[in-house]
Amino acid sequence: MNDNTGEKSRLTLLGLGAMGTALARAWLAAGHPLTVWNRTSSRAEPFAAEGAAVAGTAAEAVAASDLVVVCLLDDVSVGEALADADLRGKDLVDLTTGTPAQARARAEWAEKRGARFLDGGIMAVPPTIGTPGSGGYVFYSGSRALFEARHSALAIPAGTRYVGEDPGFAALHDVALLSAMTGMFAGVSHAFALIRDKDIAPKDFAPLVVDWLTAMAPYAYGVADHLESGDYTKGVVSNLAMMVEGNSTLLRTAGEQGVSAELLTPFMALMERRLADGHGDEGTTGVIDLLTR
Amino acid sequence: MNDNTGEKSRLTLLGLGAMGTALARAWLAAGHPLTVWNRTSSRAEPFAAEGAAVAGTAAEAVAASDLVVVCLLDDVSVGEALADADLRGKDLVDLTTGTPAQARARAEWAEKRGARFLDGGIMAVPPTIGTPGSGGYVFYSGSRALFEARHSALAIPAGTRYVGEDPGFAALHDVALLSAMTGMFAGVSHAFALIRDKDIAPKDFAPLVVDWLTAMAPYAYGVADHLESGDYTKGVVSNLAMMVEGNSTLLRTAGEQGVSAELLTPFMALMERRLADGHGDEGTTGVIDLLTR
Ligand SMILES: NC(=O)c1ccc[n+]([C@@H]2O[C@H](COP(=O)([O-])OP(=O)(O)OC[C@H]3O[C@@H](n4cnc5c(N)ncnc54)[C@H](OP(=O)(O)O)[C@@H]3O)[C@@H](O)[C@H]2O)c1
Ligand SMILES: NC(=O)c1ccc[n+]([C@@H]2O[C@H](COP(=O)([O-])OP(=O)(O)OC[C@H]3O[C@@H](n4cnc5c(N)ncnc54)[C@H](OP(=O)(O)O)[C@@H]3O)[C@@H](O)[C@H]2O)c1
Repeated sequence: MNDNTGEKSRLTLLGLGAMGTALARAWLAAGHPLTVWNRTSSRAEPFAAEGAAVAGTAAEAVAASDLVVVCLLDDVSVGEALADADLRGKDLVDLTTGTPAQARARAEWAEKRGARFLDGGIMAVPPTIGTPGSGGYVFYSGSRALFEARHSALAIPAGTRYVGEDPGFAALHDVALLSAMTGMFAGVSHAFALIRDKDIAPKDFAPLVVDWLTAMAPYAYGVADHLESGDYTKGVVSNLAMMVEGNSTLLRTAGEQGVSAELLTPFMALMERRLADGHGDEGTTGVIDLLTR
Repeated sequence: MNDNTGEKSRLTLLGLGAMGTALARAWLAAGHPLTVWNRTSSRAEPFAAEGAAVAGTAAEAVAASDLVVVCLLDDVSVGEALADADLRGKDLVDLTTGTPAQARARAEWAEKRGARFLDGGIMAVPPTIGTPGSGGYVFYSGSRALFEARHSALAIPAGTRYVGEDPGFAALHDVALLSAMTGMFAGVSHAFALIRDKDIAPKDFAPLVVDWLTAMAPYAYGVADHLESGDYTKGVVSNLAMMVEGNSTLLRTAGEQGVSAELLTPFMALMERRLADGHGDEGTTGVIDLLTR
C-alpha cells in the first residue's frame, strides 16, 4: 500500500472542502500521485507541501490525469467547475451529493463530452475517510467498466458498494439511507424530550436507546420480506391493531410529560388509515403503500 | 433451574392473553408453583394440565400467593380485575402497559390497600419470553425492596432493569424507547417507499438499512452528551447548517420518486427553526428544546 513505485495511477481531485480535504489526504497517504484544485486557491496551496500538484484552473487539473474525482458543494458547482474542461477520454467520478435525477443528467452530460461517468454517494464523514474498518463506504453507480478499472484508487478513502449501471442509483441509495436516519433521529429526539428534566440522566438513558434501536433495526428485513412477497402479515408478532392501541399510550405519555408529539403523529396517522382500510392483522409495511402515489 | 424442591415461591398471574400465556409458560417451565386467572376462563383451563392452579376468581387467585403479577390489556382492566381482591401484605407487580401517571396512581392505590407495588414495562414480545439471550427485558420501577426480594422469580421470563423508586419510570422508559422506535420505523418506511419499483430489490436494500441504522444509533450518545453539558456543538461533525442543506436533497429526491415526504418534514421543520434561531453550528439536539414546552 505504501510503495511509490509509480504503479499507482495519478488522479485529479476537484474540491478541497471538508470532504475533499479528507479524500486528498487519504490518496496522498496511500502514495497516489495527486493533482488538486479548489475554487478558493488558498485552500489548495497547503497541499503542495504534502506532495500534491496544485493546478491553477479546473481545466488544467482535469488535463493532468485520466481519473478525475469531483467533490463539490452541489451539482450546480460541478457544472460550473467543469465548464471549460476537456473531458474526452476521462474517467469522471462525481462524489458530490445530489438527487438521482441530477446524477442521471450529469452522466448524460459527461458522456456527451466523451467521458465515462460514475456517481458516488459518500456514507461517511471526513474523520473516517482513509480509516479502514471505520465502516464508512461509498455507493457507486454508473459505468461498471470505470468502477472496475479504477477500483484500487476508489477503495483507498472508504469501502465501495457498486449498486448498478443506472447512474441515479448511488444517489437513491444514499438519500434513502439518510431518510431512514432522519426518521430515527426524530424518534430519538422525541425520546430524550420525554425523559428530560425527569431525574433520568441522559447518559444513563442513551445506552438503552442505542441497544433498543440496534435490536429493532432488523424490522427492515421484515418490511423487505413483506414487499417481496406482497403478504404484509408474514411473521407479524405485533400487528397494526395492537400498535395503534399502543400509540394512544405513547401520545398520552407525551401529553403528561409536556412534549409535543408532532414528530410521531404523521406515522401514527398513516397506521390508523391503514387499519381503517381493514389491515389490522398486518404489520406497518402497508404505510409504504400510502406514501407512494 | 429445574429442581422442584419447593424452594421456588408460589406466584399468581392475572391475565392469560398473548403475553400472559408466555409468562405463565416461562414460570411453569422454571418450576415455579403458579396460580393463574383469566377473565374468560376458557383461556385459563388448559394451564391446569400444565401444572398450574386455576383460580375461579381474581380474588381467589390473589389469595393464593404473596407475589401477584398482573398482565392485562390496560390500566382500567387492572382496576376492574383487582376490585374485590384483598391486597394486604401482597407484592403486586403490574406488567400491564400504561403511562407514567397511570403507574403512579396505581402504586398509590395499591399501597393504600396494603401492598408493595412494582410497575413493569415489557421490552419483549411473547415469542422471546423465557428465552435467555434473546435480548428481551423488562423495565421495573417502584418498590426496590419488592424488586430485590422477588428478583429470582422476576428474572425468569426476561432480563430485568430496575430504573428507580418513582413508579412511573418503568412506563416512561418503555414509552420513550417505543417512541424512538416509532420514528425509526417511519424513516425506514420512507426509505423503502423511495426505492420501491425502481429495480432495487427490497431484500438487497434491507441489509444496507440495518447496517446503516445500527451504525448511526450511537447518535444517541452525542445527544446525551449535549444535554448533559448544555453545549450542543460538542463533537458535531455534520452541523445543522449542513444537515438543513442536505434535507433539500432528501425532499427533492422524494419528489422525483413520487413519495410523500410527510414522515420527514416535521423534524426538518424543527431543524430549520433551530437554524433560523442562530444555532447552525450545533447538531440536531436543539430540536429537543423545541419539543418541550
Ligand atoms: N462533510 C461531510 O460530512 C459529507 C458527508 C457525505 C457527503 N458529503 C458531500 O461531499 C460534498 C462536499 O462536501 P464538503 O463537506 O467538502 O463541503 P464544504 O466543506 O462546504 O466544501 C464545498 C466545496 O465546494 C466548493 N464549491 C462550492 N461552490 C462551488 C462552485 N460554484 N464552483 C467550484 N467549487 C465550488 C468549495 O470551494 P470554495 O473553497 O472555493 O468555497 C469547496 O471546495 C457535498 O456534496 C457533500 O454533500 C459531505
Ligand atoms: N403482546 C406483546 O407483544 C406485548 C409486548 C409488550 C407489552 N405487552 C403488554 O402486555 C399486556 C397484555 O398484552 P397481551 O398481548 O397479552 O394482550 P391480549 O392478548 O389482548 O390479552 C389481554 C388480556 O387482558 C384481559 N382483559 C382485558 N380486559 C379485561 C378486564 N376488563 N378485566 C380483566 N381482564 C381483562 C384479557 O382477558 P380475556 O381473555 O377475558 O379477554 C386478556 O387476558 C398489555 O398491556 C400489553 O401492552 C404486550
